[in-house]
Amino acid sequence: MSMRPIGVEPRRSMVDEAMSYARELEPRLEPLDHLDPGDPFVYVSVGGGELGDLVLTAAKRSLGGRGGGILTAAIDRYPGFPAQDVADAHAVLDMMNGDALEAAISGFVGDPRRTRHAVFLEVEAVDTMRVFEMSRRGYNVVSTPYGPLIGMDRLASKLLISGLGVPAVDWRYAGSAEELRSAADELGLPIIVKPVMTSSGHGTSVVTDADELDAAYEHALKHARGRGDEVIVERYLPELRERGLELTQLVIRGFDEDGRLRTSVLSVGHMRPGAVYVESWIPSGAPASLEAEGAEHARRIADALGGLGIYAVEQLVVDGKIYTSEFANRPHDTGMVTRWALTEDEGSLHLRSTMGLRIQLPRIVDIGSTCVARVVLAPEDVAPGSPVISWDPSAAYSVLAGMGVRGDVWFFGKPMAYPGRRMGLAAACSPSLRTARDAASRAAAAVEEGIRYGAPRS
Amino acid sequence: MSMRPIGVEPRRSMVDEAMSYARELEPRLEPLDHLDPGDPFVYVSVGGGELGDLVLTAAKRSLGGRGGGILTAAIDRYPGFPAQDVADAHAVLDMMNGDALEAAISGFVGDPRRTRHAVFLEVEAVDTMRVFEMSRRGYNVVSTPYGPLIGMDRLASKLLISGLGVPAVDWRYAGSAEELRSAADELGLPIIVKPVMTSSGHGTSVVTDADELDAAYEHALKHARGRGDEVIVERYLPELRERGLELTQLVIRGFDEDGRLRTSVLSVGHMRPGAVYVESWIPSGAPASLEAEGAEHARRIADALGGLGIYAVEQLVVDGKIYTSEFANRPHDTGMVTRWALTEDEGSLHLRSTMGLRIQLPRIVDIGSTCVARVVLAPEDVAPGSPVISWDPSAAYSVLAGMGVRGDVWFFGKPMAYPGRRMGLAAACSPSLRTARDAASRAAAAVEEGIRYGAPRS
Repeated sequence: MSMRPIGVEPRRSMVDEAMSYARELEPRLEPLDHLDPGDPFVYVSVGGGELGDLVLTAAKRSLGGRGGGILTAAIDRYPGFPAQDVADAHAVLDMMNGDALEAAISGFVGDPRRTRHAVFLEVEAVDTMRVFEMSRRGYNVVSTPYGPLIGMDRLASKLLISGLGVPAVDWRYAGSAEELRSAADELGLPIIVKPVMTSSGHGTSVVTDADELDAAYEHALKHARGRGDEVIVERYLPELRERGLELTQLVIRGFDEDGRLRTSVLSVGHMRPGAVYVESWIPSGAPASLEAEGAEHARRIADALGGLGIYAVEQLVVDGKIYTSEFANRPHDTGMVTRWALTEDEGSLHLRSTMGLRIQLPRIVDIGSTCVARVVLAPEDVAPGSPVISWDPSAAYSVLAGMGVRGDVWFFGKPMAYPGRRMGLAAACSPSLRTARDAASRAAAAVEEGIRYGAPRS
Repeated sequence: MSMRPIGVEPRRSMVDEAMSYARELEPRLEPLDHLDPGDPFVYVSVGGGELGDLVLTAAKRSLGGRGGGILTAAIDRYPGFPAQDVADAHAVLDMMNGDALEAAISGFVGDPRRTRHAVFLEVEAVDTMRVFEMSRRGYNVVSTPYGPLIGMDRLASKLLISGLGVPAVDWRYAGSAEELRSAADELGLPIIVKPVMTSSGHGTSVVTDADELDAAYEHALKHARGRGDEVIVERYLPELRERGLELTQLVIRGFDEDGRLRTSVLSVGHMRPGAVYVESWIPSGAPASLEAEGAEHARRIADALGGLGIYAVEQLVVDGKIYTSEFANRPHDTGMVTRWALTEDEGSLHLRSTMGLRIQLPRIVDIGSTCVARVVLAPEDVAPGSPVISWDPSAAYSVLAGMGVRGDVWFFGKPMAYPGRRMGLAAACSPSLRTARDAASRAAAAVEEGIRYGAPRS
């Protein structure tokens, strides 16, 4: 594979290639049993947002960081990104620029055949093909060079999911406005239209009326990465909003305490009114049998792609059925709730498992309670590029205390905002999911109200 | 106060001065309700070992670090100290050198009357008098300028403890070898001899025979800070080893969720065969009524010294009685077990409370279990200055899995060892304290065995 594939058949080949790569790789995977401060493991996070921050912080917090034998490096597109101040080294560059990206990664790693290292793609907005090509030159792209490539490509993902016999909502691929119209005819309205490649749910529309198809296509095109004329169409399940639930299955492929490769699953529940992350919780709240069925589906996907680390598999639970929609080969936004709900967070689990370190599966912190995380957003009317002048770390605690609920705030420290940008999370834990959701939502609102934004720097 | 006090009376004056300072300060303490990324709060950790690391990491992990409005700085005496790689700024210098120390602190803080800041003394091996003097020039030394000064001085501490009517083991002050002999006569052997000022229990001896008194005095003198001829003599309780328990009461003075100043106590249990930290656990295992009585004693001490932050008060529980021995105005070695036992660790609690941020008291992660932390030490026969060549983060997990116990390892990443240096911690949690202690001990041994040391760099 040397070019980004277009259309169905090249993706099918890519998926086959990925699966055969995984099979070849599997027997070569080995636990990592020593860290050498004099010759450190180099861990590169391509993308240094809150997820990268969580991953790299774990290297410092438990493993001694640089002095313990892990040199952390992070790359992002703007100065002051969240993981920058925990990384031992960092670079600010356009991650879609393959040359700049390769220069930075190779600068951190040195000789990839000599230095133990991992290259972790934290975001989709990266020249993933270049990173894939680098894997041919000896770079260890986790979980495998194919994992991020297939996860970020909705068509390849759907082909993999269907090929594994994992139940999914009916879907079609459309490479033009005409193909979109016939897909809509076949599936019947309402449908969801999504670009084949985006990050964070951008470019997604729900179409309930055939007149809206062209606008949805344009919208997808505008937000697409790669070829913008390619879209995925899914049957929309209105009952999901009324009586459904979304799950993220955090599948961890890693070595257990005895050095045996295991695939384990942690289930996160969430709901989002639109296409982006709003709130999530652990335990998931799904019926145990459905949660287990979903976990088995998710495990099948992760095992097909292989390697070490986290695959976050997204699923819908509606009327006693579970459908797998997509996945990412990394920790997941919805999984950030692990920070409060579990004894070890997804960042630490990803770090350790991708390095080949042995992991112990975390347990729930407060059995009988549900912990909910809720996003803290910049307002829709903020001017893009507005810096944070001040924020109030306290008001959320008054809200929580008033409700008698335990909770917390995690402020990401992003240097500036744009409309709807995620600035932090509020968390709340309670025996009642309803109370925890309510408290997390009110705490998040208190944080949002307490942020003062300045005028954008010109 | 302008010189380090000597003898009993000057210490008595210092304690009186400290208490009247605390009373004046109390009504001026205010919760901090906003952080300003454009004009950050500067948090300086004087000493950057594992405790400083825990405190500064909390600034990054929850509050967004520099981007969230907290600039962290750390100072220690050797390059590669544990907190160095999480601090936004750092300095390597001899902290007993007042001029160098003041230059570094003032460089980080800038104008102390203009910049919101805190200066936290993580260790005793600091020119505390100079830091005290800096408080006169507007520097905010936490909890109060007197807190670290009295906590590091065993005579001042004992005078405060006795003055508050808090029960203590019988003790005497001796300023010479003759005074030591008469103190031994008065108390009766066995006794413990300690320098008035040291850090980490160095210079302490148990004397069971009058012939050993001179050697004990010499030993104290050798390890003393400040005037080496001053020692504290305590009655030794042999029954402590047989059927006693030691407690550290972590007293937190901070603003609660509603912005009210509260003094709260978390109890840690521990045992040490000698004078230094070996293992500790939460819950403490002390009978509830004694734990509460000890907490009340500890609270009295913290409230007398006032300000914001953690006072770690050390106590002995023997035969249904509780004795307070000493305290430190900072998070405590034995309190590092909070990292696994509680939903928020002592470093985060100290950071937030000393800044004036509101805190929610943490809860126990796993009700019904005890979590134990155990030190990972460099061997007694290691050559001083030996670098860590490699370590094995995995073997401890095999041990834990073999015992069916949940646990973890925290490696500090110190660049080199000396005999008996603390290199990390192993933790284990179990419904049985005995099992948890056993597992933590075996896990720590596994980490110790897996560390390879190289030859000291010349």
